[in-house]
Amino acid sequence: MQTRLQEPERAMQSKELDFVISALAAHSPLTDSDAFMDWFEARREVHRFRIERIPFAELDKWAFEPSTGNLVHQSGKFFTVEGIRVETDFGPIREWSQPIINQPEIGILGILAKKFDGVLHFLMQLKMEPGNIALVQLAPTLQATRSNYSRVHQGSEPPYLSYFLDRAGSRVLVDVLQSEQGARFLRKRNRNIIVETSKDVPVGDDYCWLTLGQIYRLLRTDNLLNMDARTVLSCISFAGPELLDTPASDLPAALRGLGLSRGELGPFGAKVIGSALDTQNALHDTDDIISWFTELKTKYLLEVEPIPLKLVTKWYRDDYEIAHEDGKFFSVIAVRVQADNREVAAWTQPLLKPREEGIVAYIVKEINGVLHFLVQGKVEPGNFDVVEMAPTVQCVTGNYRQAKPEGRPAFLNDILTAPADRVRLSTRQSEEGGRFFQEQNRNIIVEVGDDFPVEVPGNFIWITLNQLKTFIKYNNFVNVEGRCLLACLPFS
Amino acid sequence: MQTRLQEPERAMQSKELDFVISALAAHSPLTDSDAFMDWFEARREVHRFRIERIPFAELDKWAFEPSTGNLVHQSGKFFTVEGIRVETDFGPIREWSQPIINQPEIGILGILAKKFDGVLHFLMQLKMEPGNIALVQLAPTLQATRSNYSRVHQGSEPPYLSYFLDRAGSRVLVDVLQSEQGARFLRKRNRNIIVETSKDVPVGDDYCWLTLGQIYRLLRTDNLLNMDARTVLSCISFAGPELLDTPASDLPAALRGLGLSRGELGPFGAKVIGSALDTQNALHDTDDIISWFTELKTKYLLEVEPIPLKLVTKWYRDDYEIAHEDGKFFSVIAVRVQADNREVAAWTQPLLKPREEGIVAYIVKEINGVLHFLVQGKVEPGNFDVVEMAPTVQCVTGNYRQAKPEGRPAFLNDILTAPADRVRLSTRQSEEGGRFFQEQNRNIIVEVGDDFPVEVPGNFIWITLNQLKTFIKYNNFVNVEGRCLLACLPFS
Repeated sequence: MQTRLQEPERAMQSKELDFVISALAAHSPLTDSDAFMDWFEARREVHRFRIERIPFAELDKWAFEPSTGNLVHQSGKFFTVEGIRVETDFGPIREWSQPIINQPEIGILGILAKKFDGVLHFLMQLKMEPGNIALVQLAPTLQATRSNYSRVHQGSEPPYLSYFLDRAGSRVLVDVLQSEQGARFLRKRNRNIIVETSKDVPVGDDYCWLTLGQIYRLLRTDNLLNMDARTVLSCISFAGPELLDTPASDLPAALRGLGLSRGELGPFGAKVIGSALDTQNALHDTDDIISWFTELKTKYLLEVEPIPLKLVTKWYRDDYEIAHEDGKFFSVIAVRVQADNREVAAWTQPLLKPREEGIVAYIVKEINGVLHFLVQGKVEPGNFDVVEMAPTVQCVTGNYRQAKPEGRPAFLNDILTAPADRVRLSTRQSEEGGRFFQEQNRNIIVEVGDDFPVEVPGNFIWITLNQLKTFIKYNNFVNVEGRCLLACLPFS
Repeated sequence: MQTRLQEPERAMQSKELDFVISALAAHSPLTDSDAFMDWFEARREVHRFRIERIPFAELDKWAFEPSTGNLVHQSGKFFTVEGIRVETDFGPIREWSQPIINQPEIGILGILAKKFDGVLHFLMQLKMEPGNIALVQLAPTLQATRSNYSRVHQGSEPPYLSYFLDRAGSRVLVDVLQSEQGARFLRKRNRNIIVETSKDVPVGDDYCWLTLGQIYRLLRTDNLLNMDARTVLSCISFAGPELLDTPASDLPAALRGLGLSRGELGPFGAKVIGSALDTQNALHDTDDIISWFTELKTKYLLEVEPIPLKLVTKWYRDDYEIAHEDGKFFSVIAVRVQADNREVAAWTQPLLKPREEGIVAYIVKEINGVLHFLVQGKVEPGNFDVVEMAPTVQCVTGNYRQAKPEGRPAFLNDILTAPADRVRLSTRQSEEGGRFFQEQNRNIIVEVGDDFPVEVPGNFIWITLNQLKTFIKYNNFVNVEGRCLLACLPFS
């Protein structure tokens, strides 16, 4: 669906401005926005997949280790399902044990970028993962565990891997380690990387160049961009020297001054970019936020002890699942996958199946003329460092609907009862389909007005987008739910 | 030795400028610089301490746990000496086991600050620690493990604790978590905090208000400022808005413009502050340094498995020590302490005794007109996150003198053979006397000239002081050796 264009001379401008330009580009000379969904559906049809739940006994190369009860792959690679015993003084439940995925290897989530007609495009991949809703979603160019790229699969080398390993002559736009779900992964992290290449890039049948503006538009569709794509996109920063500290109200003029039309930028989008560019008007300076974070890390105890899966209490295992005896949280199941565009043709694997749909939401509010995000410090057992910054509301494993209003987590009522004209985003997005079975969470952003108090409980703090993007550059500050929801921020 | 002065109106200036003003204040209206050492020696005489090595059997409340051989306190608090098995692909030795101190609690290292005559002063404590060379050193106002301040000692509450716990009406100048020695501690961290109070502060007999300039002068004396003081001081940042991006050559004029005389600032000191203020001329931008760090964390394997101390191989235990069979690294010993200014009157405890003096050193060089520090990415088994930034040369546990020149660590020869007129700092500084027995390391800074290559091996990178200070704000980037050596940077 794409034609090759001449690459123009590289402009001497910051990568952040390049991101802004791409974010405002609702159209691409390479990929027709209107035709995209047709292409996507057509490619989906080309691939035939069958996912069936199977009993654990039919897992191939996976087995329960007799001495521990851990679910392991015979190579010792990929991941294992183990147990942890948790003790904490954060939240209503102080002590429990649970199954958890242990995946200590650092994988690569890589998006290849290239300028066409002066606008950064991102090479996105149509990818099947067995747990995905509708099976196929849009993924990063490269999504590889170390087992993948060290060929434990015995399959072929993942496409485009060399662009990320050999970065000579390329510009690295993003390159950070990021944590994943702390409630289900024991300290898992991936390398989130965006590399801009000037090399020739052959485009495979399941790949497609998109501008950031096009990607943001696709993020309005439920379950289209996978979690791996969203976490990488969340690491994009817009605060380059050219536009730094331009207030939202002056953005259109500033962009025109740089020879840019406003493109997709709507009134809320202008506030979003304004908050990303601001370094002057934050309610709390960065040192104070770090002090708030230090206080929480010092205050809360989190002791996580790995234990054999068979010693996890209140969970049972039958032929088909490992589940909580009250039917809560998630279960571990097994599936058989038959597909034709993976590194290997067919396989079986365990997946985590959530009990119910969850919700992640930010409350945002203009303070000092700049959009601030209400962030909570949240302790989760798999966290690398006790506390990470999470969205205002994050109910991913519990059943938030059944809680009585007075028993609901802080600010959940504000989200669920927000008037429609305050809701800036409301979509459903999927968790990682390689580990989670048909898990989707409601993604909501509500902009509150002057009547909403600036004073918040001690575990919460107002942070600008510029500050959040800075914390994302450093490791283990903003959790995956908090990052992925930022990736969905609407610009229009 | 001090008189109380009226506190002036607080100026509307950044805390960073307050730090600069204090750093340039070689004298204080409260504490006479020339009389300080007399006071220090007089106070030392007041305290009588006796440290004697004892067999493990004479340890009181400490014992070897029969099932593991771990050395533990009967309260389960303080710390334990355990074993770890390490596997890594960093460095010449790929697999080993060793004793390590496990101290998971987060302690507080706090310095109380207050303005007198408009100049920030820091309340330093004369403190005995059993492992200290000459026993008494200058310490932070408060140095407390959680066991200390939760009163496991059954002693009295540590002085000044309330200023750090109740910070209402105070200004928090520094508040970050910092790692400690990764070769000897398993993921130990302390909260490094500086609080400026406007409250009245009674000054105890063993306490003394000093300006930063006075402290920097004292840092030229061997083993006077303890490690805890140095790590807290290293977190001080000078880059406030008033002086940002002032080049070293313009500093005197800029300071005069702010009504400041140059004070203690010498030509190298001007380069140091110039590097702390610079945000424009770094050889690598911060994103590129994070990418370099991400690459190292992805590249190197570090697997650390806690094991019972009795399973550590190549180490033996006799009545008096746990030691390596080749006489290398360190040994674990036991001491009895009798003193009169500790929370309890007498106690016994284990200490780690190093085999030989070590060396930590930065090579610094002007690049683009700004001083850059040559930093290495170093894997140490107790690191919280695989790799931390370390000084150019860090030989703390090995015997660097016995290595043949060709077998020496990178850049050690440059340090050992540097001509005297290139050596900007050369002192001996102690490691933490509460855990380490008479351990001192040579602290060296060598400024190299134009002939020294900018190209360095992949594990090394040139970083400005401004960038290093920013990394120090976030957790687990700069290791304790790297931080403490920065604290000693001479200003004159």
